[in-house]
Amino acid sequence: MADLETRIAQGRGDAPADIVLRGGEVLCVVTGARISGDVAICGDIIVGIGADYEGKEVIDVSGLTLVPGFIDTHLHIESSLVTPFEFDRCVAPRGVTTAICDPHEIANVIGLEGIRYFQAASERTVMDIKVQLSSCVPSSHMETAGARLLAEDIAQVMGHPSNIGLAEFMNYPGVIYRDPDCMDKIRLFEGGHIDGHCPQLSGKDLNAYVAAGIRTEHEATTAEEAIEKLQKGMRVLIREGSVSKDMIALQPVLTDITSAYMCLCTDDRNPLDIDEYGHLDYMIRSLIARGSPITAVYRAASLSAAEAFGLKDRGQIAPGKRADIVAIGDLSACDAQLVLCGGKVVNDAAFAARDIIPPVGRNSVKAPTVTPDHFRHGGNNPETPVIGILEGKIITEFLHEDIPSTDGDKRPDITRDLIRIAVIERHGVNGNSATGFVKGFGLKSGAIASTVCHDHHNIAVVGADYDDMALAANRLGQIEGGFVVVQDGKILAELALPVAGLMSLLSFEEVRDQLIPLRAAAHSLGVTLEEPFLQLAFLALPVIPALKITDRGMVDVHKFELIS
Amino acid sequence: MADLETRIAQGRGDAPADIVLRGGEVLCVVTGARISGDVAICGDIIVGIGADYEGKEVIDVSGLTLVPGFIDTHLHIESSLVTPFEFDRCVAPRGVTTAICDPHEIANVIGLEGIRYFQAASERTVMDIKVQLSSCVPSSHMETAGARLLAEDIAQVMGHPSNIGLAEFMNYPGVIYRDPDCMDKIRLFEGGHIDGHCPQLSGKDLNAYVAAGIRTEHEATTAEEAIEKLQKGMRVLIREGSVSKDMIALQPVLTDITSAYMCLCTDDRNPLDIDEYGHLDYMIRSLIARGSPITAVYRAASLSAAEAFGLKDRGQIAPGKRADIVAIGDLSACDAQLVLCGGKVVNDAAFAARDIIPPVGRNSVKAPTVTPDHFRHGGNNPETPVIGILEGKIITEFLHEDIPSTDGDKRPDITRDLIRIAVIERHGVNGNSATGFVKGFGLKSGAIASTVCHDHHNIAVVGADYDDMALAANRLGQIEGGFVVVQDGKILAELALPVAGLMSLLSFEEVRDQLIPLRAAAHSLGVTLEEPFLQLAFLALPVIPALKITDRGMVDVHKFELIS
Repeated sequence: MADLETRIAQGRGDAPADIVLRGGEVLCVVTGARISGDVAICGDIIVGIGADYEGKEVIDVSGLTLVPGFIDTHLHIESSLVTPFEFDRCVAPRGVTTAICDPHEIANVIGLEGIRYFQAASERTVMDIKVQLSSCVPSSHMETAGARLLAEDIAQVMGHPSNIGLAEFMNYPGVIYRDPDCMDKIRLFEGGHIDGHCPQLSGKDLNAYVAAGIRTEHEATTAEEAIEKLQKGMRVLIREGSVSKDMIALQPVLTDITSAYMCLCTDDRNPLDIDEYGHLDYMIRSLIARGSPITAVYRAASLSAAEAFGLKDRGQIAPGKRADIVAIGDLSACDAQLVLCGGKVVNDAAFAARDIIPPVGRNSVKAPTVTPDHFRHGGNNPETPVIGILEGKIITEFLHEDIPSTDGDKRPDITRDLIRIAVIERHGVNGNSATGFVKGFGLKSGAIASTVCHDHHNIAVVGADYDDMALAANRLGQIEGGFVVVQDGKILAELALPVAGLMSLLSFEEVRDQLIPLRAAAHSLGVTLEEPFLQLAFLALPVIPALKITDRGMVDVHKFELIS
Repeated sequence: MADLETRIAQGRGDAPADIVLRGGEVLCVVTGARISGDVAICGDIIVGIGADYEGKEVIDVSGLTLVPGFIDTHLHIESSLVTPFEFDRCVAPRGVTTAICDPHEIANVIGLEGIRYFQAASERTVMDIKVQLSSCVPSSHMETAGARLLAEDIAQVMGHPSNIGLAEFMNYPGVIYRDPDCMDKIRLFEGGHIDGHCPQLSGKDLNAYVAAGIRTEHEATTAEEAIEKLQKGMRVLIREGSVSKDMIALQPVLTDITSAYMCLCTDDRNPLDIDEYGHLDYMIRSLIARGSPITAVYRAASLSAAEAFGLKDRGQIAPGKRADIVAIGDLSACDAQLVLCGGKVVNDAAFAARDIIPPVGRNSVKAPTVTPDHFRHGGNNPETPVIGILEGKIITEFLHEDIPSTDGDKRPDITRDLIRIAVIERHGVNGNSATGFVKGFGLKSGAIASTVCHDHHNIAVVGADYDDMALAANRLGQIEGGFVVVQDGKILAELALPVAGLMSLLSFEEVRDQLIPLRAAAHSLGVTLEEPFLQLAFLALPVIPALKITDRGMVDVHKFELIS
């Protein structure tokens, strides 16, 4: 941080400021006022507003409105399918100056090495990446991950400056039933920040969860759920990911009265989505368009987020705060024209100056080669549990369908949109695999497969044809993981993700460009979902209700147990 | 704090709660909603709301509304004229469950010993007293105090659990002109909380002050000043003391939009005032009566205060938060019927159970005996600087009056309300004394004197008669400090304050009862001010504009220099 005496001297105008932004207006997220005058910056810190300043460098922001940099309060950078450096380059120009990430995707594959990679990256990116420590690796006892982190492991990576707390405590049954490993982790962060994850938890169960000291939460999918969580002392993070879209449902809750206690987050958002719609900038313009007050929305995107996570050094364009500033042409459009992160102008030169480190987690796909027979699904009772997809949500329905067995195999039935889903362990641990049924893809032929498969990131495959499913699953081993679409024995499209089977080595533009034919190929199989790969990925996450599947079998999430 | 597993178990209803509050409604300071259902408490922590609970102890709060305990965000407990233990007993029953105090009154008399006394008291009171560390002892270089604290001294008392930051940084010129001692103190708390004090500071000077990392402020006396401070990133504390009354001026600023960033404080409030009007409860009902929204007012009194000072453990009636709860009959009246502090019911038994420690700072008045001639005031130029009192404010006017010299002495002129003021050093350091004029008391005869004399707490005397002034000043030495009113060679009334010349050994009720005749005696001299002693006390504080007097002479505060 800029030296104390220099900050004061530049703030007082006794010395020229390092940078002056001239000609714009500041939107005050505290009072809602527009403040004219220069903004003076000393190093990484704002030192003056609302006055005339001399500057060593003067940037003309005439006609623009300056708002505090946006804070994504919860995301997994891995879900952008690119490295943190490419994520930085993709998202910072849209005004995101702080990303509070949970590296639990990579941690599920390679453990602490993955967390350390994100910590090291956070020292080098233009945006400020805060790396919360992953609380639930794996998310539950009902899956096989590539690593398992106990409190003593997490303690090893606590000292890093990017660490601001424990990441989303997804194992909410483990909290409310006082699982000893969970208690150890919570105790490790007692008095600090513990982020939450408790979809649909309510009443006394929610009381118990919050009483453990968990303070922020992003899984509310209805206004009612958000209000209960606010009333119980949680800061509610409105999430709009590529698949989990809660913004429209929660928008009415975001008012002048509540905005100090609500934040925005993306959780999981891919580069195609970011390119087509945007990131937090998309949420901001959408919320304003739907009627939330402009000040409330920009406050939620900045100051409220900073307060919720104890980041007292940012969130307002005011003296003494980090110079995280977005210059906008039209507040309703949230069209960032210029972004400063910690006093640094976000541009190609800033990105080029980064000391990029090589990614970790190569050659992580160690699945057994599978044959078509792997995908057979036995059982004598025709009544069959079926995962019911809800488009745009990561919660699912627990359906029951009558499905007859033929030759000891319950076959997919595309006339009823009942297709096969399988999860195959791929960390080289036990070679587990499990099969089941899913409804809602609309897939009529072929198969799609992925190593992005929350959170254990085994191989998930859905398909109508066992040969195509086997080809798809096996292809992932050959390309070090990624996404693949297969039909009639042919690979229609694929995207390799060689960094832990989660992230590409390519630029975000290249990944975006490859996602277009990939999505088209999936749709050519009949798939009706807008985001088939992300929707697939969440079918394997057993801490989101109601019915899920892991490498160990189908999971009744409300009962938090495997279905025998 | 209550054990983690027990909190969760009681929150979930798996075990009976330690205490259940039944039949009331919770006012949610986040959403404004009223929430019915029991409130469950485990030890010192709330573990459940909005549900039915079994309790080991059930307290009936039928018909009452439960609000979070009030937080006084800035006060000097010494100004209540009683010990912290009596302050506790006086104010906690009104709903004040946290007091963020600055013990700089006693620190100016006896240094670190005084701060340690408050720290030790904070471990024993029913309410939670947070002891910020005094930043400016003495307040400036233009006065003689009984102690002088440098950064290295403050560092010695930093480890105590009651310490949440550096107390009001009153020497704002020292900050904006980068005085090395001031810089050292700020550096000691960099990244932590530094409380502010910068009356009438604006523009670039205010930018510079805030750029130093100072985050809260209570000296705004106009709405315009408060708004500028909010816009520059400060949390504004609305103050209503016994003499500094800013509530009416700032009330319009407290709205639904700003309330998350505004707090309440009393700064200096005496037991007579507390008895007649109230404490924070008085502010709450007055703000509501003047039109601020109920939720905004109760929020400012609790959650906003907790957030502003980093007290993440309190401020809302929600699971995981400290059980600081006020049960109120009528929210508009703010009539506390029952108060819990950290899960403990505030009542006589709780006060009786405290382990009270003996006060410090006895026999602290070491002034020279003075004669009537001490109060003569020389000078050849008739144009004389005169302190102009503004009733209900601690800022003063810098007046100029023509006052002729007679026999080398400018005599008081009661026909023009120009009376003598003197300050006499009383710490045994140098025996300094200085004289001047003050206008606004209305005093026609006699003298009043006090050892409560901010912040150096020397002897302040005002009077129309030099003999009475000498008697009043000398009497303070005999009673170990306090207040005295003299007329025609007789002591009309007095209150001894033997604890550092600031606090009584008596109960708050006895002090209150003695203040009534004392005030009446002052008024019998013609004094028209409601609070003559407190108003007098602030005439000696050279960090509040515009004209003040210390033992070293008259001070032009805007120039921050002694008038020769």
